[in-house]
Amino acid sequence: MAQLHHHPFSAASRFVRLVLAEYDETADFIEEKPWVRDPALLLMNPAGTLPIFVDDNEAVVSGGAVVAEYLVETKGARMGEVRLMPEHAADRAEVRRLVEWFSRKLHGEVTDYLVTEKIYKRRMTPAEGKTSPDPAAIRAARANIRYHLQYIGYLASRRNWLAGRELTLADFAAAAEISCIDYLGEVPWDADETAKAWYARIKSRPSFRSLLTDTLRGVPASTHYADLDF
Amino acid sequence: MAQLHHHPFSAASRFVRLVLAEYDETADFIEEKPWVRDPALLLMNPAGTLPIFVDDNEAVVSGGAVVAEYLVETKGARMGEVRLMPEHAADRAEVRRLVEWFSRKLHGEVTDYLVTEKIYKRRMTPAEGKTSPDPAAIRAARANIRYHLQYIGYLASRRNWLAGRELTLADFAAAAEISCIDYLGEVPWDADETAKAWYARIKSRPSFRSLLTDTLRGVPASTHYADLDF
Repeated sequence: MAQLHHHPFSAASRFVRLVLAEYDETADFIEEKPWVRDPALLLMNPAGTLPIFVDDNEAVVSGGAVVAEYLVETKGARMGEVRLMPEHAADRAEVRRLVEWFSRKLHGEVTDYLVTEKIYKRRMTPAEGKTSPDPAAIRAARANIRYHLQYIGYLASRRNWLAGRELTLADFAAAAEISCIDYLGEVPWDADETAKAWYARIKSRPSFRSLLTDTLRGVPASTHYADLDF
Repeated sequence: MAQLHHHPFSAASRFVRLVLAEYDETADFIEEKPWVRDPALLLMNPAGTLPIFVDDNEAVVSGGAVVAEYLVETKGARMGEVRLMPEHAADRAEVRRLVEWFSRKLHGEVTDYLVTEKIYKRRMTPAEGKTSPDPAAIRAARANIRYHLQYIGYLASRRNWLAGRELTLADFAAAAEISCIDYLGEVPWDADETAKAWYARIKSRPSFRSLLTDTLRGVPASTHYADLDF
């Protein structure tokens, strides 16, 4: 069976879990520590990042966006309507622009700070480089999430889904990031009703279920995390 | 005619210029200042980065890798052998992994430091935020280029081109970064003969010509920059 090396709070791993679930694909999930440089993982992905997907045919594919495109190309063809990538090149480019926006910019400016400070640092041992949480990083994330939520609201108010008429990888790349931030209760939902309505829609999809049951010893989910009506 | 908003020393812009040239496509080149947040450009690309490609059909596509894939999908089909993306999904994933590696990791650890410190800061006005070059950034870039050159050599010693048998976007993403660093004389070519041989091969392609004639007032090219035999 295919394998996914992941961490439950690696947003890029969540992105791939969502796409797998949309395609009704299963994989053995192998949990890794994103804060440790594991030689076996570095052999599979020299960048040392998660997720890493090892397909049935032994193809080793790494990186959220790269795995997602690989799944579209290899598993998406038989899905009919739910292709997650539009047909026309300009629309595909818009999906890719947004996937990069969410996976890089939203991730780097918000998710990475919060998950590192509030989750990974609790799990690290001193030997793994544990330090105390950095309040400046958390403050930066709390300021930045407002702009990103506003941009999601802006897109959702003009389009059916974030990249256009169809549900695409862009929605799942965004939702994967937001779900990590929301678990920690750090999404100021009152600030943008349109973004909230978009997230309620995507969170109700069956593919989201496994994310909503993720729990973390010592860090409980925000009260509305798994509430489909908020 | 199509337009490319670019800067001659934006590596992502060079990546797109190379792909355009490989496909025998032309565009009006419009030079922008990457260090200025221009409202007109932000409307086209909210990330505020170059390049931005405006196609004949008015599609607006931004980001080096995203524009490159768009060009493959829209202009590559008629190129026969020189498709720049392999046929099989796993091979395409490897190309995308390497494009990301070079455009993000090599860029962020080497090119961005050198181009910002040695080129952009010379061009900025005080009002644009000019500061003096940061020797620590240049030192970091000089240490990091060695690992990246070694990785290019490692790939080139095991494969015909960087991602496999065929010439692909991965080679041009790498060559775009290396060409900026090489202009500044900062590639320690003696450290890796295999990487040097790979670069000599790609630099000899006709698509490279326009890059090799780029010049910069006040910052002359390294002596071997345009020398096809080094």
